[in-house]
Amino acid sequence: MIKRFVVGNPLETEAILNKVQMSEEKIPYLSVTQQGFSYKLEPEDIVYGLGENVRGINKRGWIYESNCTDNPFHQEDTRSLYGAHNFLIVCGKERCFGVFLDTPANVTFDIGYTHFDEMKITLTQPDYELYVLECETPEEIVGEFRSLIGPSYLPPKWAFGFGQCRWSYFTAQEVREVARGHRENHIPIDMIYLDIDYMERYKDFTIDRETFPDFEELVEEMRQQGIRLVPIIDGGVKVEKGYDIYEEGVVNNYFCKDAEGNDFVVGVWPGKCHFPDMLNEKARRWFGRKYQFLLEKGIEGFWNDMNEPAIFYSENRLKKIFEQLETYKSTNLDVNTFFQFQDLVRSVANNPEDYRSFYHNFRGKKICHDKVHNLFGYYMTRSASEAFEELAPGKRILMFSRSSYIGMHRYSGVWMGDNRSWWSHLLMNLKMLPSLNMCGFLYTGADIGGFGSDATEDLVLRWLALGIFMPLMRNHSANGTRRQEAYLWDNMAAARGIIGLRYRLLPYIYSEFMKAALKNEMYGRPLGFEWPEDTIAVRTEDQMLIGESIMIAPVYEQNAAGRVVYLPEEMKMLRFSGTELAEEKVLEKGHHYLEIGLNEVVLFVKKGHILPLADGGECVDQVDWENLKLYHFAPQGADYELYDDDGVSAAAVLEGHIRLLKV
Amino acid sequence: MIKRFVVGNPLETEAILNKVQMSEEKIPYLSVTQQGFSYKLEPEDIVYGLGENVRGINKRGWIYESNCTDNPFHQEDTRSLYGAHNFLIVCGKERCFGVFLDTPANVTFDIGYTHFDEMKITLTQPDYELYVLECETPEEIVGEFRSLIGPSYLPPKWAFGFGQCRWSYFTAQEVREVARGHRENHIPIDMIYLDIDYMERYKDFTIDRETFPDFEELVEEMRQQGIRLVPIIDGGVKVEKGYDIYEEGVVNNYFCKDAEGNDFVVGVWPGKCHFPDMLNEKARRWFGRKYQFLLEKGIEGFWNDMNEPAIFYSENRLKKIFEQLETYKSTNLDVNTFFQFQDLVRSVANNPEDYRSFYHNFRGKKICHDKVHNLFGYYMTRSASEAFEELAPGKRILMFSRSSYIGMHRYSGVWMGDNRSWWSHLLMNLKMLPSLNMCGFLYTGADIGGFGSDATEDLVLRWLALGIFMPLMRNHSANGTRRQEAYLWDNMAAARGIIGLRYRLLPYIYSEFMKAALKNEMYGRPLGFEWPEDTIAVRTEDQMLIGESIMIAPVYEQNAAGRVVYLPEEMKMLRFSGTELAEEKVLEKGHHYLEIGLNEVVLFVKKGHILPLADGGECVDQVDWENLKLYHFAPQGADYELYDDDGVSAAAVLEGHIRLLKV
Repeated sequence: MIKRFVVGNPLETEAILNKVQMSEEKIPYLSVTQQGFSYKLEPEDIVYGLGENVRGINKRGWIYESNCTDNPFHQEDTRSLYGAHNFLIVCGKERCFGVFLDTPANVTFDIGYTHFDEMKITLTQPDYELYVLECETPEEIVGEFRSLIGPSYLPPKWAFGFGQCRWSYFTAQEVREVARGHRENHIPIDMIYLDIDYMERYKDFTIDRETFPDFEELVEEMRQQGIRLVPIIDGGVKVEKGYDIYEEGVVNNYFCKDAEGNDFVVGVWPGKCHFPDMLNEKARRWFGRKYQFLLEKGIEGFWNDMNEPAIFYSENRLKKIFEQLETYKSTNLDVNTFFQFQDLVRSVANNPEDYRSFYHNFRGKKICHDKVHNLFGYYMTRSASEAFEELAPGKRILMFSRSSYIGMHRYSGVWMGDNRSWWSHLLMNLKMLPSLNMCGFLYTGADIGGFGSDATEDLVLRWLALGIFMPLMRNHSANGTRRQEAYLWDNMAAARGIIGLRYRLLPYIYSEFMKAALKNEMYGRPLGFEWPEDTIAVRTEDQMLIGESIMIAPVYEQNAAGRVVYLPEEMKMLRFSGTELAEEKVLEKGHHYLEIGLNEVVLFVKKGHILPLADGGECVDQVDWENLKLYHFAPQGADYELYDDDGVSAAAVLEGHIRLLKV
Repeated sequence: MIKRFVVGNPLETEAILNKVQMSEEKIPYLSVTQQGFSYKLEPEDIVYGLGENVRGINKRGWIYESNCTDNPFHQEDTRSLYGAHNFLIVCGKERCFGVFLDTPANVTFDIGYTHFDEMKITLTQPDYELYVLECETPEEIVGEFRSLIGPSYLPPKWAFGFGQCRWSYFTAQEVREVARGHRENHIPIDMIYLDIDYMERYKDFTIDRETFPDFEELVEEMRQQGIRLVPIIDGGVKVEKGYDIYEEGVVNNYFCKDAEGNDFVVGVWPGKCHFPDMLNEKARRWFGRKYQFLLEKGIEGFWNDMNEPAIFYSENRLKKIFEQLETYKSTNLDVNTFFQFQDLVRSVANNPEDYRSFYHNFRGKKICHDKVHNLFGYYMTRSASEAFEELAPGKRILMFSRSSYIGMHRYSGVWMGDNRSWWSHLLMNLKMLPSLNMCGFLYTGADIGGFGSDATEDLVLRWLALGIFMPLMRNHSANGTRRQEAYLWDNMAAARGIIGLRYRLLPYIYSEFMKAALKNEMYGRPLGFEWPEDTIAVRTEDQMLIGESIMIAPVYEQNAAGRVVYLPEEMKMLRFSGTELAEEKVLEKGHHYLEIGLNEVVLFVKKGHILPLADGGECVDQVDWENLKLYHFAPQGADYELYDDDGVSAAAVLEGHIRLLKV
């Protein structure tokens, strides 16, 4: 049962691909309040969803805002991350329903924050579409929702390899060193990411020829080593006379405008920038075609950044702030005024007032940015993806974005944004995966080892041991932090082994990913989806099902020699020491304490299931998909449908095939 | 075995009360490096200690700096908190030794951060004393160390009650409302804390008579209700003509000086301030006697704040920053200069350069602050404590400090500093207790519910359920955050029940605390101290022994319906629903999953032990210490030595007595 309610005159976000008829009935479950809805939560209710957000798989106990935000310091008390995903599922004893609010403006979800037993949804705009979905299980609700929003993005097969990133590899030479660091040490790798410094003065679709003089040769040279270079693209275009993108944007009115109709000036990486009006169809087509600049240099993948859009400052705000700072010069700054002074400077970035002071031309209408804020990253990424269909027809291009809104899942993946080298962020990576999967974002993962702050060897190893199960597997760290490439640690062998295991797992990961994408299913599922009657399983948030055959239980505590794992049913534990199986053991239902070394990965095969493993390889192309070793827990026999395809053909020309594996 | 090594001409910190003879031998265990020491860690080595710091009970895997720092946003990657505690224990298969570095300047402890198997200690000053202690067990090392540093501070018995704080209760009226909120709802309470706004313009030892016109009556009125008011004292003295403390300090040269010999100007709460030179004995005596102002108003307890000392800004730095900001006015702020601009403003507070630019008169010598930085809070608190011996002879005064150094444990407790309403900080509270205990700080606890950011009902309830086992039990929250007083939550009954249980536990908590203090033992112990051979127990960091009879295992995960508890041996689980026992059950050695409701407290009685419980009460005075109910797990019988005394007499006149309880 899907019911669609239209309130006011909502903007068409194109989140929903397959619209159902409007319902004239009363809205079920939710009580209508002045600015939204409320719902009484029962003690046993679990609230799933909300995509990219902090806290648990069960979202109860906090207040979340859908308000795409650049927050690399996010904590437990953060309310908004990079994406805005207004889909949730309430799952209780007696009922299970899903809610999707299709509105590109800010929405607040108070899930038992103000009152422990009340969910309150508050909208900032009176025009929206509301979908209520009702099914027996949360999994069915996800299926129904995904059929509404359309199929998930398919990355090329090589994008399931391991990628290494750093803000930044500043020169072609550094890129070559990173490639060598992996290849010489036999640490598998398929991608090296280029962060902002490959560009000339941070200008989109340029190459810094001083530091990357032979960019095209570098791309080809890496390609010969089985490595793709994946450059970053910024959401802002530098204001610079003579820079073609800037000039074209100005002439054609492709940039967002301020209230007076001038091109809106914001500070981003290059300093003063304009935002391409991604919501203006013409501007979007224009911007998307600019990716050609890199495609024709042999690039086959991109990541779109800063497209919340992040604003370091607006020109006007900066002026005002400098004026206000003057008044503090002569003040006796006490506890009150001192914090005001600090807050003033802090308020320069991503200021809500700035988001209210520029405008889009959306379907021919001038619309203030704050009313469509959450669409910017979506439409930027769509601009590229739609262009790829013309520029590289029939070919899958790797693409993932920092900011997102539901609908964008058809065009690209997302990475989980700028995170930190914290054990808590390792655990959050695990918890975020199923929430994003519910919303259609299947190709996703967090920056392994953490982007900001300094990593430690054990953190990176433990995070790799989780990261090998993420569709998007990338190690990334920020300028000024400790280097964390796998080959730089004392215990390089452990990193090599764990990443090597990823390559053994590839046929299974790819198969499960593609089946989930093609059948509107989930790749990573909470235990509560499989064992809804098991009161322990539904509250277990540090384990997860990956595909149909296995459960994972990563170690996320420093200095832990192992961890307690909960088995909702009898399973077979497989312990890998690096790439090799070191132990297999059937464990009964219940809690088990397992020692897990820093070089080990432990996983659990469900009864009646098979885990096919390849021999491995140092890049995806080397992996032999044919000769698989079948690990299984199948006292009665079992079979497994292994999906495969050429790994490069886009959805329109996709020719997938299933191979039945049997034991 | 205690060995003392003297290197260079160390400053006398008076951390060590009972000095041993200097050793002429080679320093054992540690390899001497250019700037300190190194030690090879074996995989199974556990490193305990370092007092107040982030991360685990086992300190391996991070780099810590002893550098007292005001950091209310502390995270996993924080290197310094409010205290500086240079004591650690390395505990391995073959050896167990302790190290104390007595130096008031910055020390860095790289415990397997740079290299997983290496501990590196780096000193910034070439003059120090080093103590190496060798025993069979970490517990014995703690005992030896504590005998060196002298007995721990004894708070009055009423300080083991529950306290409520807020930055701030702005008026006498608000204080009365908080008292009423507890008393009318029968939520036990013994203390209401006064944060900075009780003062006139944040001046130490003043009362704002506009908001607290009848301060003395308020003190007495609260006292009649069984509630003590506990005011805060700042480490800085406001620069204000006519303000007696300021005038006296200037005239007598009691303030810290800048390089030119002028009184050093810093911004703290009141704006421009001077720091009393707490290291100058005369100034210290003078400052300590100022507490008389509040003692004579009936005040019996204090908390010393901002004594790292925290610096919002120095006058000179602020000038420079405003000048530098000018240059940014006309700049195109790009990704590099924008972050420089933000960092510039951020760098105004607690800037290392400021700590290098003022001076103390320490034992007659002019000494730059950075060489004695970690002593400031210690000597400020000592100033008060020494004065109390004259002003209130024989009487225990409640005193705890934010900043500390080993040695201060003789004069006061510490609270764990400004924390946040995060689940991770609840867990950190648990982990920090034994580390502080090792260093002599027994009277301690964290701000329950979290100081900064917004709390939720479940967080406060779970934190209270841990907090009832902390010697210092205080709920505290910051200006601008959600109110979190126990009577304001929907589920007030749960808070009442949990705090009520604290009052039932008081005879045990007081007895265990006092015995630990008088015998140089620990109040909260890691499981590894009791079961060093149990490889699971030594890595279990989310449970703890409280005194001799019980183990606790708090819930620290949101939405968890319970948790897994590890029992290193057979124990009896007691489940309290509020104040009342709801279930008792003997559980065998091993892992157990237990459901634990938000209104419940679960604890575990060790075999052969007794847990005596009182009937409870709404303030400490009401608790009947005589008629105790004995819960026990004593199939063979057991006895318990209950320590008690009058609860107010200071160490010099203490007449404690032991009552033997038997089953």
